[in-house]
Amino acid sequence: MTDLAIDGAFAERLFDELAARTTDAPGITRASYGDGEQIAHDMMKREAKTLGLAERVDPAGNLYLTYAGRDPALPCWVVGSHLDSVPHGGNFDGAAGVIAGLAAVRALIDAGIRPRRSITVMAIRAEESNWFPLSYLGSRAALGLLPKESLATPRSDTGIALREHMAMLGLDPGRVGAGQVHLKPNALHGFIELHIEQGPVLEAADVPIGLVTGIAGSFRYRNARVLGAWGHSGAVPRSHRHDAVFALAYLITALDALWATLLAQGETATITVGEIGTDPALHGFSKVPGEVAFCLDVRSLSPTCLDRIHAGLIEIVTHIEAERGVRFALGERTGSAPARLDDGLRAKLAATAGGRGAGFVEMASGAGHDTAVFANAGVPSALVFLRNQNGSHNPDEAMRIEDFAVAADMLASLLARDDNE
Amino acid sequence: MTDLAIDGAFAERLFDELAARTTDAPGITRASYGDGEQIAHDMMKREAKTLGLAERVDPAGNLYLTYAGRDPALPCWVVGSHLDSVPHGGNFDGAAGVIAGLAAVRALIDAGIRPRRSITVMAIRAEESNWFPLSYLGSRAALGLLPKESLATPRSDTGIALREHMAMLGLDPGRVGAGQVHLKPNALHGFIELHIEQGPVLEAADVPIGLVTGIAGSFRYRNARVLGAWGHSGAVPRSHRHDAVFALAYLITALDALWATLLAQGETATITVGEIGTDPALHGFSKVPGEVAFCLDVRSLSPTCLDRIHAGLIEIVTHIEAERGVRFALGERTGSAPARLDDGLRAKLAATAGGRGAGFVEMASGAGHDTAVFANAGVPSALVFLRNQNGSHNPDEAMRIEDFAVAADMLASLLARDDNE
Repeated sequence: MTDLAIDGAFAERLFDELAARTTDAPGITRASYGDGEQIAHDMMKREAKTLGLAERVDPAGNLYLTYAGRDPALPCWVVGSHLDSVPHGGNFDGAAGVIAGLAAVRALIDAGIRPRRSITVMAIRAEESNWFPLSYLGSRAALGLLPKESLATPRSDTGIALREHMAMLGLDPGRVGAGQVHLKPNALHGFIELHIEQGPVLEAADVPIGLVTGIAGSFRYRNARVLGAWGHSGAVPRSHRHDAVFALAYLITALDALWATLLAQGETATITVGEIGTDPALHGFSKVPGEVAFCLDVRSLSPTCLDRIHAGLIEIVTHIEAERGVRFALGERTGSAPARLDDGLRAKLAATAGGRGAGFVEMASGAGHDTAVFANAGVPSALVFLRNQNGSHNPDEAMRIEDFAVAADMLASLLARDDNE
Repeated sequence: MTDLAIDGAFAERLFDELAARTTDAPGITRASYGDGEQIAHDMMKREAKTLGLAERVDPAGNLYLTYAGRDPALPCWVVGSHLDSVPHGGNFDGAAGVIAGLAAVRALIDAGIRPRRSITVMAIRAEESNWFPLSYLGSRAALGLLPKESLATPRSDTGIALREHMAMLGLDPGRVGAGQVHLKPNALHGFIELHIEQGPVLEAADVPIGLVTGIAGSFRYRNARVLGAWGHSGAVPRSHRHDAVFALAYLITALDALWATLLAQGETATITVGEIGTDPALHGFSKVPGEVAFCLDVRSLSPTCLDRIHAGLIEIVTHIEAERGVRFALGERTGSAPARLDDGLRAKLAATAGGRGAGFVEMASGAGHDTAVFANAGVPSALVFLRNQNGSHNPDEAMRIEDFAVAADMLASLLARDDNE
């Protein structure tokens, strides 16, 4: 039996191979239920076999790699994250959490430690909602929470239904649709996800680790439009205009003012209009725009704050409609509930960090993570952020292997303890 | 010799044939230097032959159909407009002015009237700047005012240079580029254009005819962008954002406020952002947008007002750049000078209207027209608007043939007089 130590070279080899095999310049693409995601799953299976872990795949394609504990009947630890990416994204968003789980288990094995509880490293399917307009697809399926109708959702690039994509990979969409439960919340001792931060907070604060207190929920309008009236840009006076783009500009600046007010009152929230566009088949340089499409993504840790922003949105929209003679067609509202993470589990992780001199801060997550699904299902859950240099969901996404090793080491140290009740 | 009378059926036949032969559902398309425009030119040549008019085509493809006067050495009248359209536009924008010229000449011939001055009906090329980002292409070429480098401009749909499009139609771009003058301003007694209004003013006022006092000039940024920083919509806090779409929204609302202020001070102007869009290859529902494209079209009758709006634009842009850490790349500035139309010629047209009991109002034109080029070259120029029902540059564009006949009748009545010095 040797000291517990994370092998940075092992992790780097896996990151390098993943990047090489899923490159899609610029950046990497591991499409949900597509080739890139499958390559990543197959790699993790191969590594688990070398480590002697037990392998299981559920009907939705989630992968479970288990290091059996001395008392396998006890509720187990699940450590994991997703292996898909956004199109032309980075190498670390998602994959870091799965590789950290394997690296931690490998450290335990190398040190000759078999803990009392089993440890399952979980590679979750399809977390990135770019491919399917569904939140937390894989983790909800694992917990039997994915509605049957979700299986008809087409993947954004192929147009083929989720059900078909699952079937093409030899999975079992019928059992997913039946709501079969493959992870029972009370059979889990805890769920832990490592993930790059995706924002600039840790880097700006010069701290490698963030321990997350809660995960934002959201409301979303993915296919909203403003409908006004087309006209000649020179011939229609201001008083006669129903300009869709001007109306949208007023909506955005009013939402920004509301946002600033809420932040000043101590709320946490984000408001984003990530996609806007007039229709190239209809718009023109010399046309007053009669229509513009946009989407809206609002997130907060507080359900009350989400409600306040939604009420503000409706008030602003109603006002602009009356003022400017336009109509907002907001379309379908989707969203997810905020999640509170487990204070006790976070305290234990903090203790392992402190014991190793690793700097950390407590922080909220504005981004959604599968951890939220486990937390809201009643599983004590924790989310550990790694400092990240260039944001996420882009080809320049970065992470330092030293920071990764610190986080994986904290994880291994927690999992090694038999007194972690 | 009979009474001077416009033959509405003659005009209707030509409008119907034009629509039938250039339909491109929805609406009609007569691309500048393309098939549709050429079909229209060929039709006008055919009608002119029937009427016994002399035909001439200049190196840029402008068509001159002349009814020789009793004293052809005198400066002549030119009556005309353009025959191209926007993509999927309407049947009347442009064509009405050429057909009105032919209908007026036909009425003179039918009535046995040969005026002292020659009358040239001019079909002008390529007025619609949707196809080439150049203002008043054909009329500037006729007056020898088109810069040589304009010939390299690619047509927006084909990507082929203007020079090549001219050559494909058997025209002579070399002579256009050499700045050859084909209409000498002092050889013109006056230029008159009939055109549908394109805006809602006459229809709202229930008046068939508008006599235009001046034509707005413009400044334009056709390819502007805001450059910010991409980020995760949930993970980047408001304080760290450089959101390109929010910055653009602030620009638009600030320009709208400036616009309202100027109108309240008695200025006339229009401000339009006709095209906006985040890049589908880069944007995402869950991304803070790091870039957005837009265009800007500002028009006014007053050069001072254009200068004030441009100064305001730069001030607003500078403020937003400092406030939000974004950069505006406005790109190339283009534009045209405002034009004052001839008071005397307008008074004579007003007299013909009054004499016939036709209702008219005086008004400014926010839209640009070839008339502006003639006016700014020193030719006494007039622009007559016809009431229009559904705006222009769209498939629903409309015009009543009775209104058309009233306007063509005013024109014929003016051209018939030998005392119109």
